[in-house]
Amino acid sequence: MFELDPVLDHIDNSLDASLERLFSLLRIKSISTDPDFKNDVRKAAQWLVADLERIGFEASVRDTPGHPMVVAHHRGPHADAPHVLFYGHYDVQPVDPLELWTDDPFNPVIKAGESGGKIITGRGSADDKGQLMTFVEACRAYKVVHGQLPCRVTILFEGEEESGSPSLKPFLEANANELRADFALVCDTGMWDEETPAICIGLRGVVAEEVVVKAANRDLHSGEYGGAAANPIRVLAKILADMHDETGRVTIPGFYDGVEETPRQILEAWEGLGETPESFLGPIGLSIPSGENGRSVLELTWARPTAEFNGVTGGYTGKGFKTVIPAEASAKVSFRLVHKQDPGKIRDAFRTFVRERIPADCSVEFHGHGGSPAIQLPYDAPFLTAAKDALSDEWPKPAILVASGGSIPVVGDFQTYLGMGSLLVGFGLSDDRIHSPNEKYNLESFHRGQRSWARILQALAGRRAA
Amino acid sequence: MFELDPVLDHIDNSLDASLERLFSLLRIKSISTDPDFKNDVRKAAQWLVADLERIGFEASVRDTPGHPMVVAHHRGPHADAPHVLFYGHYDVQPVDPLELWTDDPFNPVIKAGESGGKIITGRGSADDKGQLMTFVEACRAYKVVHGQLPCRVTILFEGEEESGSPSLKPFLEANANELRADFALVCDTGMWDEETPAICIGLRGVVAEEVVVKAANRDLHSGEYGGAAANPIRVLAKILADMHDETGRVTIPGFYDGVEETPRQILEAWEGLGETPESFLGPIGLSIPSGENGRSVLELTWARPTAEFNGVTGGYTGKGFKTVIPAEASAKVSFRLVHKQDPGKIRDAFRTFVRERIPADCSVEFHGHGGSPAIQLPYDAPFLTAAKDALSDEWPKPAILVASGGSIPVVGDFQTYLGMGSLLVGFGLSDDRIHSPNEKYNLESFHRGQRSWARILQALAGRRAA
Repeated sequence: MFELDPVLDHIDNSLDASLERLFSLLRIKSISTDPDFKNDVRKAAQWLVADLERIGFEASVRDTPGHPMVVAHHRGPHADAPHVLFYGHYDVQPVDPLELWTDDPFNPVIKAGESGGKIITGRGSADDKGQLMTFVEACRAYKVVHGQLPCRVTILFEGEEESGSPSLKPFLEANANELRADFALVCDTGMWDEETPAICIGLRGVVAEEVVVKAANRDLHSGEYGGAAANPIRVLAKILADMHDETGRVTIPGFYDGVEETPRQILEAWEGLGETPESFLGPIGLSIPSGENGRSVLELTWARPTAEFNGVTGGYTGKGFKTVIPAEASAKVSFRLVHKQDPGKIRDAFRTFVRERIPADCSVEFHGHGGSPAIQLPYDAPFLTAAKDALSDEWPKPAILVASGGSIPVVGDFQTYLGMGSLLVGFGLSDDRIHSPNEKYNLESFHRGQRSWARILQALAGRRAA
Repeated sequence: MFELDPVLDHIDNSLDASLERLFSLLRIKSISTDPDFKNDVRKAAQWLVADLERIGFEASVRDTPGHPMVVAHHRGPHADAPHVLFYGHYDVQPVDPLELWTDDPFNPVIKAGESGGKIITGRGSADDKGQLMTFVEACRAYKVVHGQLPCRVTILFEGEEESGSPSLKPFLEANANELRADFALVCDTGMWDEETPAICIGLRGVVAEEVVVKAANRDLHSGEYGGAAANPIRVLAKILADMHDETGRVTIPGFYDGVEETPRQILEAWEGLGETPESFLGPIGLSIPSGENGRSVLELTWARPTAEFNGVTGGYTGKGFKTVIPAEASAKVSFRLVHKQDPGKIRDAFRTFVRERIPADCSVEFHGHGGSPAIQLPYDAPFLTAAKDALSDEWPKPAILVASGGSIPVVGDFQTYLGMGSLLVGFGLSDDRIHSPNEKYNLESFHRGQRSWARILQALAGRRAA
């Protein structure tokens, strides 16, 4: 066993240097959904390879048909040491609307946060550059203090997580032997609160679709044609409105196939967390749960499926007014899936639902944007207890088991292509504003996150995973 | 009486020069809805003043809180000559989506049209620069040939017609004595077809509203909050979908107050024009009337009110996908009014309808974009017969009386503020693509339009209006 305390001390003493490194990475505009930023995404991958090489990893940028992967290897202290695959993503969400950012999204600063502690500002600070660097820094500290890592570590950093991970599955399939480990460490989730670390055992899946309703062959003057010509915004609005009934349930036939009721004991444990509509929705200025009536906000976001409208556009949206009947209107629609819902069937059911509502003289186009099933992790995975104890040692309160409303498709892909379970640990907080203007990461998350990974690696080194 | 034939000859011989003048005006980007083009709008006003002065008008740019008016005066041949106020507008619609234009919208050319004759391309060619110049050129021809005009002519060119005419009412009120004439000539309408001129006796009114639905105080991650947080696109879609029933009727309470059934004889005359859903909608790629079931396309567009959605936007609308629940979503909604519908009451009824559908933890904002009642012209106006005969002399087929689906608020304002009726004559065609990419004006419309005004001025000079 490696001594832990000197590693933790080194992390504490190197915080400023680790922040400088994080800031360098945050300044790179690695927006994966927008082709204009293709070179920036690659730049972030190259930055990571250079940093990992400095720690002693054998690291490389690995091309894909889309954005590149970063793969790195570090041998363990001996042949029997456990082998973990650490996963994070270095791409970030777009930043619009830019005018709502208080600070430059790509020029991070440290400043006082709204709830007291210090925060790191910027796009990607929490999702996911700040998180993945907590692990990199823990490895660096081990290497500096002990000259080696306590486990054999493979790293996989993806550059397409925010754009549906189109290259991930083929990459895992093609490189399964190189990437397979005893289990994966995935750092893209959050804490329960600032004092309570959490391990995520359930993840909603997602299906994303863009639907384009087409009516006339050109934009029309609404005086000349209004009342006679089909209006694609009206057609689209009707379709979107039809997708929920008055109790908040999704009306697409077959949508709830494979959805299970959450066990009573789990629901009770979640009720014990004391989350209310007021506490959950109050900070974002809301108060009334919008999903299926009669269920708690934690159940709605952790264990129930949804249909959400992520974007809609059609006609004239500029300043002033234009009395046009547009030729087309489109919406971005996504579904959060739970339990055994099948992404392919959900996509098909949605498309059928839409097609049935398109007038005979209009047409519709669909563009799929990726999909993944929900994940339910086994409660009895051997690494789960080790990690839970290690986290409980670091933070003021013991770690708890939670679920997550967001999907992390890679966890399902690791299971499918590498036959490998995942441990989901992360240090984000619910007010990190990921995907929104003014994303931030608590300095405490970044600091204790590094210490947490040092502890987890230490704990894992003592056992072989199943 | 002035001899007409030399005036018509002069028009024929000066066609090239008149086109050069029109092209100069079309090249000015006088988009009134977009503040970025403020200076271009003024430039168009100045161009018109200079041109009218060359004809002998006493012309000036007249400032308003918005875009300027052009006012010009030319005395008649004697004190008892009829006095007409000619109205047109020199501002134009925005040009987006620019990529759908075959030719530069602000660099007009003459080329072969799709249906045989030559066309003039460009934004404003038909709506309304090309139309207003037909009158200016007719005046110029009279002045050259006879040294004077057959009537006393006042001209009012507006620069805010496409942005709701915010300055028009106060300007008419403040300058009523200067602008009042026996009646108005308004050139912003169309022909029945390429051979058949038309005089418009009914005009739909309009009420335009922008509605903004606000939910959370920031954009949300749809994984984290989906199922719990209100989605403003869903709220908005439901509101828009609720606005029509399954028979195509508008469901807003009180919406049909003041709507009258069109007299049987008028409907029969319109049926005699032979317009069918196929002939009306076929050219724009549609076939099924979208309005109230069981009514003809001419009745739907000329004599029935509508609710149309002119624009909608919310959430992420860029390339790729962003799993966001947006903080707000908005729509531009307009109503076409007929008969005695009251714009103020319609606006209030719409706002009430929307407010009743906003969840308690969301909010809504409205932005009014102008409104005007419908106009029904008297069938027995003395100038109507004179103009109908003059038009019938110029074109291959006799002039017919029609209605228009689009509103021309100035006609109502002339009635209200100047106590003056209007004669609506124009030479646009239904395939002119006004407000759309690839707007055009037939060369024949521009040429015979000038000749038509020469004939009408001649006919009016022989009588005093009521």
